[in-house]
Amino acid sequence: MQFTEEKFARHMRPINGSAIREIFKLLARPGMISFAGGNPSNTALEPEVISELSGKVLSQYGTTLLQYGATDGFGPFRESAAAFLNTEGVKCDASQVLPVQGGSQAFDLLLKALVDPGDVVLCESPTFLGAIQAMREYNARLVAMPTDENGVIVEAAEALIKEHHPKLMYVIPTFQNPTGITLSLERRKALAALASQYGVVIAEDDPYRDLRYSGEPLPPIQSFDEEGWVVYMSSFSKYIAPGMRLGAAAVTNPPLLRKMVIGKQSADVHSPLLNQAIVDAYLRAGLMPAHLARICGDYKKQLDAMLDGFKCFPAGTKHTLPQGGLFVWSELPEGVDGLKAFEAAVEAGVAFVPGTHFYPDGGHLNTLRLNFSMCDIPTIEEGMRRLGKVISEMRS
Amino acid sequence: MQFTEEKFARHMRPINGSAIREIFKLLARPGMISFAGGNPSNTALEPEVISELSGKVLSQYGTTLLQYGATDGFGPFRESAAAFLNTEGVKCDASQVLPVQGGSQAFDLLLKALVDPGDVVLCESPTFLGAIQAMREYNARLVAMPTDENGVIVEAAEALIKEHHPKLMYVIPTFQNPTGITLSLERRKALAALASQYGVVIAEDDPYRDLRYSGEPLPPIQSFDEEGWVVYMSSFSKYIAPGMRLGAAAVTNPPLLRKMVIGKQSADVHSPLLNQAIVDAYLRAGLMPAHLARICGDYKKQLDAMLDGFKCFPAGTKHTLPQGGLFVWSELPEGVDGLKAFEAAVEAGVAFVPGTHFYPDGGHLNTLRLNFSMCDIPTIEEGMRRLGKVISEMRS
Repeated sequence: MQFTEEKFARHMRPINGSAIREIFKLLARPGMISFAGGNPSNTALEPEVISELSGKVLSQYGTTLLQYGATDGFGPFRESAAAFLNTEGVKCDASQVLPVQGGSQAFDLLLKALVDPGDVVLCESPTFLGAIQAMREYNARLVAMPTDENGVIVEAAEALIKEHHPKLMYVIPTFQNPTGITLSLERRKALAALASQYGVVIAEDDPYRDLRYSGEPLPPIQSFDEEGWVVYMSSFSKYIAPGMRLGAAAVTNPPLLRKMVIGKQSADVHSPLLNQAIVDAYLRAGLMPAHLARICGDYKKQLDAMLDGFKCFPAGTKHTLPQGGLFVWSELPEGVDGLKAFEAAVEAGVAFVPGTHFYPDGGHLNTLRLNFSMCDIPTIEEGMRRLGKVISEMRS
Repeated sequence: MQFTEEKFARHMRPINGSAIREIFKLLARPGMISFAGGNPSNTALEPEVISELSGKVLSQYGTTLLQYGATDGFGPFRESAAAFLNTEGVKCDASQVLPVQGGSQAFDLLLKALVDPGDVVLCESPTFLGAIQAMREYNARLVAMPTDENGVIVEAAEALIKEHHPKLMYVIPTFQNPTGITLSLERRKALAALASQYGVVIAEDDPYRDLRYSGEPLPPIQSFDEEGWVVYMSSFSKYIAPGMRLGAAAVTNPPLLRKMVIGKQSADVHSPLLNQAIVDAYLRAGLMPAHLARICGDYKKQLDAMLDGFKCFPAGTKHTLPQGGLFVWSELPEGVDGLKAFEAAVEAGVAFVPGTHFYPDGGHLNTLRLNFSMCDIPTIEEGMRRLGKVISEMRS
């Protein structure tokens, strides 16, 4: 018998993978300038440091790192991750930290624990593509919360909670992917209060928090949560190395933590111990502050070059002014089709991600996401010139 | 508002985690002899080798191992894993290998791709606890296939396929967990034929295959599959190191591989590159054959000591005679309650896993699973004496 599409779970049939992954295939063309990714800069990565720490922890812990470990995590890493999260303003102790395969797995485990097919999950619109896909894979119904330049509009979110009784709300509060927008202090407080009032779990996905180039840090939504409704999802992907696949979720609600651990037992048993021990050693060696200072210094210059490059774009182009993170979001003058602009841009040797892909309901064809972390400054300047020219020509 | 059980997805509410994990807490008592685990021996683990390979690959590949990687895997590892699987009799090339976080994740991704709530999954009974939990987490309906000393009874499996139209069948063909039984050659052929005839995906979970201490290796079920219905799940946990969390699934059906990759994109983006590169280097250095020969030599002696120890058990005790793997399965004389025996055994300083936990429908209270890989021979002898005494006393 031949395998046919009907063998797949119903809700999985239409899910065909990340649009960004398709775009990445185009980036191999010679001379292509890519604003499409979301990777840290290669210059931010430290293979010698990781190699030294790997040798150190294997010598220190020996077979312990190679045996099976506990699903709820490697003790020393839970301690150092809790200490790190405390410096971020997150209220948690080591017993409330769950090591995960990047922030993605924390959200996956939350969806697994909470969502019955058809349950509503509230999210920003636009939002992270991977999260959209994850919600669809759990057969959730995505409902978009209206946002403005200060993030989620609280009154609108409250109205949607009353209408849909969601179990879960997904928010990227700091230097949001894709917009670069940061949720304001008062809205952070207000969302924590809504979660508690209506009994909605908030998945606070905050992987860019320490990539701040200007302005003052804001406390996490989680810091205003008194009853364990907010799950804080941190990741070492953007700070140390995405290839290590290690993040840490702070879950102060014991039954919810327990159910996420149960989900992880059958998903992958536990996170690799070597990776947990390396990041633990990195944190304990106190390497993070100087490392972040260095990479933020570089990223700030790259962001400034990209913002300056908008001078090449036609009048009527809008863009965000992020204080950190990896992305700038742009709205082209009405009527310019971002998908067509993408094709023309690739011909001209520059790539980005059309903004429509980040909207659960599509549309918004005149938007685009630009990443600046992977190009040096002359490349950013040249890329913005090429892109500005392409878009100007589409206007004329 | 207080968080309540009703917030969880309905089918997740009754899932409270692995019984074995609770048993493990008792093992910390001083002097306790444990036949309860399923870990490789600490003497089988090679922290110096892993440390050297880690340094080598980080020096060779540099930042590549620390950046984001492809969900479908690190190219060199896919190649060496395919070559390794080919030596196991698995028919696949590198493009059909998906790196996973141990065999558990391969099964999790298959369930995610295929199972609608209420869909039937066929499995052996008894079977691996983690698989039972995974199936429940995807709200599958578990239907047990009758087995005998040669594994799944094919005629009974066919009748169940006709009755239930399952999408998926889960089988551990070699040195099964928990029984140690190996599926016979002709049944391997017959199951592959059933899969093709009725359109049922077989998840062939084969992590113990190379831990063979006597008898001749049998070809995998997958080797008889012509149409891509059998997914072969291998793991380096039992051969190299479970703490590394790395396995390899061979998926020769392109749409199914694609859907598993999509599931993995949102579950964890990709498997850690450092771990893939270390195991790749291990395989390329040709370390596996001598390593397996060494650990199989040790495990054989441990297995023999355990089998010999049954002389301390009362008449009427039955046990399997595994040719490999990590487990022996025993049926106590009718009327001896394995849960009560467990309590008495823990008092006497020896632990095992009551067999009832491995049955999707419970029952079979007179069965137990014994692991021999984690104890040296004098400890196995002493443990079997203690256990034999406890069980003899329960009989009198």
